[in-house]
Amino acid sequence: MDVYQCIRSRRTVRDYKPDPIPQELIRKILQAGRWAPSSSNTQKWYFIVIQDRDTLATLGKIATQGPFIGQAPMAIAVVMDDAPRPQLDAGRALQQMELMAWSEGVGMCFVGVREADQQKAVKELLKIPEEMELITLLPFGYRAESSKSAGTPRKAIEEIVHWDRFGERVQPV
Amino acid sequence: MDVYQCIRSRRTVRDYKPDPIPQELIRKILQAGRWAPSSSNTQKWYFIVIQDRDTLATLGKIATQGPFIGQAPMAIAVVMDDAPRPQLDAGRALQQMELMAWSEGVGMCFVGVREADQQKAVKELLKIPEEMELITLLPFGYRAESSKSAGTPRKAIEEIVHWDRFGERVQPV
Repeated sequence: MDVYQCIRSRRTVRDYKPDPIPQELIRKILQAGRWAPSSSNTQKWYFIVIQDRDTLATLGKIATQGPFIGQAPMAIAVVMDDAPRPQLDAGRALQQMELMAWSEGVGMCFVGVREADQQKAVKELLKIPEEMELITLLPFGYRAESSKSAGTPRKAIEEIVHWDRFGERVQPV
Repeated sequence: MDVYQCIRSRRTVRDYKPDPIPQELIRKILQAGRWAPSSSNTQKWYFIVIQDRDTLATLGKIATQGPFIGQAPMAIAVVMDDAPRPQLDAGRALQQMELMAWSEGVGMCFVGVREADQQKAVKELLKIPEEMELITLLPFGYRAESSKSAGTPRKAIEEIVHWDRFGERVQPV
């Protein structure tokens, strides 16, 4: 799929068909994360691919913001280890993963695991070393028909884009 | 350009041809940022498009990590305003912008503006309100021939990808 078409058509997906994601596509999603740029090329990320049904079900129970993880055929936990800019680098990597997946018909949803007790429970379950930072759980799957919505609205472009300096809303000729 | 091809061929570009970026492509880059997902769809970003030559030259002097901004035909300052996850949301938006640009032959480079005095100087120059967070300056341009390198290496996929739990390097059958 063309890049612009992919970006414009992408939707966050929380309702998944049970169909498994082909292993070849999982590899491409992981490669998309691996080839993302990172601060000083530090690549301080780990991607844990979860396909075990019991583990997915347990994650869905722990992450109350994302119970739908329990229904996803696959999830990726993004973990950062002592990175100079963990959130920013993770954001760049997971966005490449999301676009890669979407270009082949698979959607995902960012699930934050922000509460301390949730972090602890997920880290224990996935055996993530304590000193590492769990950024998110990303359930992936083919979009169920029921969830094909129009998508969330966006601010007008004039509201967020300024020209040459903040507050200048008119493009100079 | 196809998404996977775009992700795999993308390179960080620090050496630009002087050729201007077509206004239509600038619009598509901004749309790519605008359509990025953000925490609870808060969209707390501003994108300041800088094409004024004097401003670009001054930014190149302030941002000692990225003097090449002074040679770029265009730069975008990414600014976050009171976002729940400023770095992560910015990372997602700027990655969509980078892939959009690259799919039409234009490269960019993330320039951090981390020192307090640099932040202050850039904010003053671009009239960015003090309470907002300047995440990065992104110079964009067509890649000069001289900079067509093989790209930075990546860790082996076996090093960063684990299966079902951290430390499990072999995919279960």
